[in-house]
Amino acid sequence: MILEGKQLIGAQAVTAQGSPIHAVNPATDERLEPAYAAGGKPEVEKACELAWAAFATYRESGLEERARFLETVAEEIEAIGDALIERGMAESGLPRARLEGERGRTCGQLRLFANVVRAGEWLDVRLDPALPERAPMPRVDLRQRHIALGPVAVFGASNFPLAFSVAGGDTASALAAGCPVVVKAHAAHPGTSELVGRAVQRAVARCELPEGVFSLLYSAGRELGQALVRDARIKAVGFTGSRGGGTALLKAAQARPEPIPVYAEMSSINPVFLLPEALAARGQALGEAFVGSLTLGAGQFCTNPGLVIGVKGEGLDAFVAAAGEAVKGAAAQTMLTPGIHDAYTQGVDGLVASNKAREVARGPAGEGPHACQAGLFVASAEDFLREEALQAEVFGATSLVVECADQEEVKRVAEHLEGQLTATLQMDDGDLETARGLLPILERRAGRVMANGWPTGVEVCHAMVHGGPYPATSDSRTTSVGSAAIHRFLRPVCYQNLPQGLLPEALRDGNPAGVSRLVDGKREA
Amino acid sequence: MILEGKQLIGAQAVTAQGSPIHAVNPATDERLEPAYAAGGKPEVEKACELAWAAFATYRESGLEERARFLETVAEEIEAIGDALIERGMAESGLPRARLEGERGRTCGQLRLFANVVRAGEWLDVRLDPALPERAPMPRVDLRQRHIALGPVAVFGASNFPLAFSVAGGDTASALAAGCPVVVKAHAAHPGTSELVGRAVQRAVARCELPEGVFSLLYSAGRELGQALVRDARIKAVGFTGSRGGGTALLKAAQARPEPIPVYAEMSSINPVFLLPEALAARGQALGEAFVGSLTLGAGQFCTNPGLVIGVKGEGLDAFVAAAGEAVKGAAAQTMLTPGIHDAYTQGVDGLVASNKAREVARGPAGEGPHACQAGLFVASAEDFLREEALQAEVFGATSLVVECADQEEVKRVAEHLEGQLTATLQMDDGDLETARGLLPILERRAGRVMANGWPTGVEVCHAMVHGGPYPATSDSRTTSVGSAAIHRFLRPVCYQNLPQGLLPEALRDGNPAGVSRLVDGKREA
Repeated sequence: MILEGKQLIGAQAVTAQGSPIHAVNPATDERLEPAYAAGGKPEVEKACELAWAAFATYRESGLEERARFLETVAEEIEAIGDALIERGMAESGLPRARLEGERGRTCGQLRLFANVVRAGEWLDVRLDPALPERAPMPRVDLRQRHIALGPVAVFGASNFPLAFSVAGGDTASALAAGCPVVVKAHAAHPGTSELVGRAVQRAVARCELPEGVFSLLYSAGRELGQALVRDARIKAVGFTGSRGGGTALLKAAQARPEPIPVYAEMSSINPVFLLPEALAARGQALGEAFVGSLTLGAGQFCTNPGLVIGVKGEGLDAFVAAAGEAVKGAAAQTMLTPGIHDAYTQGVDGLVASNKAREVARGPAGEGPHACQAGLFVASAEDFLREEALQAEVFGATSLVVECADQEEVKRVAEHLEGQLTATLQMDDGDLETARGLLPILERRAGRVMANGWPTGVEVCHAMVHGGPYPATSDSRTTSVGSAAIHRFLRPVCYQNLPQGLLPEALRDGNPAGVSRLVDGKREA
Repeated sequence: MILEGKQLIGAQAVTAQGSPIHAVNPATDERLEPAYAAGGKPEVEKACELAWAAFATYRESGLEERARFLETVAEEIEAIGDALIERGMAESGLPRARLEGERGRTCGQLRLFANVVRAGEWLDVRLDPALPERAPMPRVDLRQRHIALGPVAVFGASNFPLAFSVAGGDTASALAAGCPVVVKAHAAHPGTSELVGRAVQRAVARCELPEGVFSLLYSAGRELGQALVRDARIKAVGFTGSRGGGTALLKAAQARPEPIPVYAEMSSINPVFLLPEALAARGQALGEAFVGSLTLGAGQFCTNPGLVIGVKGEGLDAFVAAAGEAVKGAAAQTMLTPGIHDAYTQGVDGLVASNKAREVARGPAGEGPHACQAGLFVASAEDFLREEALQAEVFGATSLVVECADQEEVKRVAEHLEGQLTATLQMDDGDLETARGLLPILERRAGRVMANGWPTGVEVCHAMVHGGPYPATSDSRTTSVGSAAIHRFLRPVCYQNLPQGLLPEALRDGNPAGVSRLVDGKREA
């Protein structure tokens, strides 16, 4: 498969006129071919025009047709074969097993959404039949379903070249909702993006959908993305990345004549609470297991455990000692981009410069140019509560252990936390009461609360919430992973007294679409 | 019942220090006692402090306990008796029957939400049981429910002193979700607000809930409201009113360190499409019936039909002639406030000054100081498409008929419309194909599409959508009327691998709460 370095706009591949972007192999600093000439306003204009034109047809595609399309995208991605894995490895520095797993997750996610589309729960059908005899006023027939918002702009993430990029979770859930998608590829992995983008193009063609259902644009810098978010035909935005990047898009979307929702998954330090009984029973084992989660993928996960909280004492000492040893032995892994490695180094230097965080251990420096040297630091709860800087996310394999005087101080630290994607309890049976005291604090601050696991590893399923209060995300009412992600791209419409011939199929008498319905407030079998 | 003119903060009645606000009887310009000394930052601070303290307990109140509280609020409002209706009439100029109906709707709404709370659909419970044998990776146990966002600020509306004010739809749905509420009373009906606020206070006490579940503040101007929206303990905002007022709150909420959702229901002109067969068969009857909807409540409804669209010809002429006659015969009704009457007069003057809208008829001038003189105007589609001003909402009983050359021009006018709360089709059997052509355009622009009815009159039920794309509302993904309004104040939380003893009741094995659950993506009977 030969990469062409072109923008994929509808069914076309177009050479843009901007400065060339090259991927760089972060393991070697080698520049990778081809060049991708950056797109600009003409490409945004054309992609949005096609997306808008496709919207009318695509949003009313049948459930089975749309499900088949999502499955076809998965098939086409698998059909790329090993070329996708190899290009992904070269562009991201991620190992083969990780990218193979990520491909499986990406295709599994597309197939999950295919089944979600078929099941039709997302339509949230509600019927309130007419009550012509009701006094003093009759009730007219009222029916509700959800419809697609419109074309969606999706921004590829640096840290998931497949699962949160061109055909990742945002794209899959938007397409499932009936929204055409215009993706801005992440500049760090343009070749991987082109391969996946071509696969989606082929799926659109095979399913005979309007070409504007999907486009893929390339650019460095923020200009093209901002133009995309400002385009009147874009009706929602999906983004995974930094707090700065996410809030910039949020501001642009809010400043439009017609503001639109932005689903930005931004920053989280994913606190882990070590409860007393668990610490006493298995402080050392927890320390070792913790570093496995901390250093996974060079710590480049939104759910990386960047903060550990426990009460001072033998158990916590054992945890810190074991974790420190494990960090010293954690092989340095190449980070995704030179920029991410620079930011990581600065973040760690900031911890050191604060004079409030004591260095427990650093990992080996590693050999490549952008290897992530893991780190473990300790601070007192007092300092943590006082210094805002200690709460900032350091994206990479560094974590801070906060030592508390007692369980009351643990609570104060919990209350002090910003919004998070996850919160973790390490607990034994004897910790149940302590956990009960923390849970209400944690569920108010996090999208997912777990016991005796580690936050890395996000299951793609129906009950998952990969979201949380600001600044973890820009919209705590949603999730970007799992089937509920489809709701981000839908809005309700009520149909009053419409003749059967005019009603959408899911709302007609006799339930011809066979979907779950709420009739007079009661769930129909 | 003696009105005291005090701020209701938790269980207390407090005299504030600001300038006095007096209600004015718009029918007579008579100043009504008592004075309400305006609140300011100290009252906001205290109300938010109590709301935050109450949140922890109230959000986890049992479903039955919370439902009983909502029913108790309804009982206490009914127990006020005729004093509420009389004060409401004096403060709003609305007739007795309307206010009695609105009281019924308000209490019915509270009881609907009581049953919604009991049914537990709003929890959106999802379970994905553990799959320990799954390869290559086992799945851990994952469970999801929705929890309350936090204390909510509600702004009373001028045009519904009961149903969209102190204990109206926003308050009822926020309380149902488990959110304490701080209401800013509308300055036009402080006495009505105090009566209802006292009723809610009594219900809080009777149900032995924490006092901070409800507070009611008074102020003229925007300062107190802005302070309320900026308070870090407020987590969402409900508002019904003007586009200017709604967007000001939206901007304040977005500028917070932690942005929060604002549900502002703002402006809508509610287009009515007269399809050819219906016009030919019953142009005159439609004209007469239309004016019934137009002049209802002096046109002071968000769903007032301010725009009528049809193809030029005999049928439309008959409609306009009949509507014009009906407008001439429509008795002038007192408007809610002097300010609303001024804005109405300016809006009508603006139509005249545009030179693009021909006056067909004006109603009688009326006798009181702030009577609404109804109006009917006609403009060409060409002018309508060209002049933004013709699309502005004139809040009151004036409507504009847009004459189109043909059905294609009708479509262009439809495509040109901003977001709306409603869109109406007047159609006969022979209009089905024409309606099919319009429906996709209308459902993209409106929250509710109806056939052969009029937009005024919003049923409080499960399938209702009182919402729509911007600027009809600030968030098209929601409704402010009907049971789905509860979703505005909730967010999902996922619980991973939690022991049974730590799980919320609705998520425990065996479904002890008896709520509808999605298990592995399938609806459990």
